Amino acid sequence: MHEQMTAPRRAFLRLLALGSGALAACRAKAPAPLPSLLGAPISPYGERSPFVHAARQVSDRSRTPEQASSLTPLADTYGVITPSSLHFERHHSGVPKIDPDQHKLMIHGMVDRPLVLTVDEVRRLPSVSRIHFVECSGNSGNGWQPTPRPTVQGTHGLTSCSEWTGVKLSLLLDEVGVQKGASWILAEGADPAKMTRSVPLSKAMDDAMVVYAQNGEPIRPEQGFPLRLFLPGWEGNANIKWLRRLKVVDQPYQTREETSKYTDLMPDGTARQFTLVMDAKSVVTHPSGGQKLAGPGFHEISGIAWTGRGRVTRVEVSTDGGATWKDAQLQEPVFSRAHTRFRYAWDWNGQEAIVASRVTDETGYVQPTREELVAVRGVNSNYHNNMIQAWKVKADGSVEYAVI
Amino acid sequence: MHEQMTAPRRAFLRLLALGSGALAACRAKAPAPLPSLLGAPISPYGERSPFVHAARQVSDRSRTPEQASSLTPLADTYGVITPSSLHFERHHSGVPKIDPDQHKLMIHGMVDRPLVLTVDEVRRLPSVSRIHFVECSGNSGNGWQPTPRPTVQGTHGLTSCSEWTGVKLSLLLDEVGVQKGASWILAEGADPAKMTRSVPLSKAMDDAMVVYAQNGEPIRPEQGFPLRLFLPGWEGNANIKWLRRLKVVDQPYQTREETSKYTDLMPDGTARQFTLVMDAKSVVTHPSGGQKLAGPGFHEISGIAWTGRGRVTRVEVSTDGGATWKDAQLQEPVFSRAHTRFRYAWDWNGQEAIVASRVTDETGYVQPTREELVAVRGVNSNYHNNMIQAWKVKADGSVEYAVI
Repeated sequence: MHEQMTAPRRAFLRLLALGSGALAACRAKAPAPLPSLLGAPISPYGERSPFVHAARQVSDRSRTPEQASSLTPLADTYGVITPSSLHFERHHSGVPKIDPDQHKLMIHGMVDRPLVLTVDEVRRLPSVSRIHFVECSGNSGNGWQPTPRPTVQGTHGLTSCSEWTGVKLSLLLDEVGVQKGASWILAEGADPAKMTRSVPLSKAMDDAMVVYAQNGEPIRPEQGFPLRLFLPGWEGNANIKWLRRLKVVDQPYQTREETSKYTDLMPDGTARQFTLVMDAKSVVTHPSGGQKLAGPGFHEISGIAWTGRGRVTRVEVSTDGGATWKDAQLQEPVFSRAHTRFRYAWDWNGQEAIVASRVTDETGYVQPTREELVAVRGVNSNYHNNMIQAWKVKADGSVEYAVI
Repeated sequence: MHEQMTAPRRAFLRLLALGSGALAACRAKAPAPLPSLLGAPISPYGERSPFVHAARQVSDRSRTPEQASSLTPLADTYGVITPSSLHFERHHSGVPKIDPDQHKLMIHGMVDRPLVLTVDEVRRLPSVSRIHFVECSGNSGNGWQPTPRPTVQGTHGLTSCSEWTGVKLSLLLDEVGVQKGASWILAEGADPAKMTRSVPLSKAMDDAMVVYAQNGEPIRPEQGFPLRLFLPGWEGNANIKWLRRLKVVDQPYQTREETSKYTDLMPDGTARQFTLVMDAKSVVTHPSGGQKLAGPGFHEISGIAWTGRGRVTRVEVSTDGGATWKDAQLQEPVFSRAHTRFRYAWDWNGQEAIVASRVTDETGYVQPTREELVAVRGVNSNYHNNMIQAWKVKADGSVEYAVI
């Protein structure tokens, strides 16, 4: 374990001593009321407890509920798997209701043998399952200005992590026979917005998948039921949902979503296009904005870290606004291109503290401060902000947005 | 890849050639109908597609819906994570509705500092998350007779796998100070049945946890909301749900569920007690009973394997009733005491075939045939049957229960 455990361990003992003190008060009715009537029967498809209320929240940039984002309540999730019901959403024309028996996937363009597959045919093929995050490139974009947001759901809720199952795209492309000179694919969704993105053929042939399942069951409608293009570690928008068509081509198609949107305006007035890989990012989810610490003593600082370039190798935590950093513990095993839970034992002395996390990924890349990020990128972007995000723990235990 | 891929790969190409042939027929309306109206809006807590119907099924041994089991539809799950809504159930007096603000956990008995903890206090402590299976020791018990069951849900549906988050029990026990001479703990649930089991202190101090979250959200009511004792790799019944009390003691308590139930009657009339570790087991979920293969050609044989003793190291598949075995591919990473997905590429020649799987775990233990199992255990048990389970694929593609 880490050196910093010594002090928190003592604090932890104090916390539990409090619990012990409560024993006398509770003894009359301890430990818990016992029901005397039979409980609920078995059920075909379970629901969560009526006492649990965590919910996706509409993004403050959404104008209509169909052309909108909803955010994962990161402060109320645990481990690395995001419950499918709480996976963030980003729709451009709502969630189409698709009958999987009617849906088809066409693969055509610069190929020798164009192909139309039913969903059942896709499901018959050799399959793979992998745990990966999906993140909207607009996630934590409020950092550019920076606009305070009250919770980590508001700042970072456009990322979620699931076990995805599907077919390797390289297998489908090998089958259709990609022709010489092809270098991109165009992917199209079956939503009324006809979401369309260009993807380099190199990614398609590397680790891209056509997925049909998420966390053990068919992919949810909000995530592209019945088929989604999945590009591990790449910006969410390019992971085309309700996938209906893949066209093999020799250039990017300059679609609406890669010209007027999803580009990064630089300080010199030019725009970066096709910045598809999500850079390394981390955020503390506890303590985070809107929470209130009960008082001084032991608190576990916890959060998530991820990178589109492979594995998270290190997360450091600061409790003094970035003056000093100490290693957090990573949840094992660490998956490639997936949320990684980190935990750090903290003995809070009850004074105002600025808490933050900083991730390093397997390429050696270190998450930048806002100052370091802005020095390169300016402040005109909407997308791909991965700056260190802080939280101020005030003396009364309340937690607020902070930038360091 | 494995040697056996060569033939199936050719079969796979033939399968896709069929798809290619369908292109001309589909071209007029290919690839998929495009909706013209806006889809559904974002939502606070998502639901699965109305076209998806997989459901838990009541066990044929259940007499009332409160004192009952429901089975995970293993043939309709993917990867290794079981959707929480489809996690198998086993209740002895129904699912109590527990307000987490009222619930408490008492730890007492042979300890220096007895303790009553609220759920919030448990959540404040240093946490861990791990992916593990839970299996009812009665799972696949029909093999003892053997009683044909039509589906893999019926034979093996009493096992499920989740990411569990909670507190290490050793941390709590260190805190209360276990006294010299203590050797067991008694765990009690807050259901009207007062489910109670004795657990060796060695397991409690090893990898046992008190869990409060499952697959990223609070543990489901059917799985013990708000607190459950979790004993990785040990029979489900001992993983006490709705945990309200842990008493440190110096002997097993010989409760109802470890005397009249959950014991293994041996051929000589004695009964084995406290057979808590779940032995290595595997089963093919595709093709499995009730499914129908579309025709000869490529089919992926897929299934799950698990062991209470650590990691699965090998799964072999037979398509000739056990005469010959070949290595299947394991989904990486393989987690300890968790479902492991295996996959095997099969070129079905269209003739009757008996399909089965056989697991080896990291201790070198190999899953037995029914004959090998019965030679040791006889046929009087209800529990802990881990024999190799086969499926007969008939010439018309239909799949039936089989024993080899």
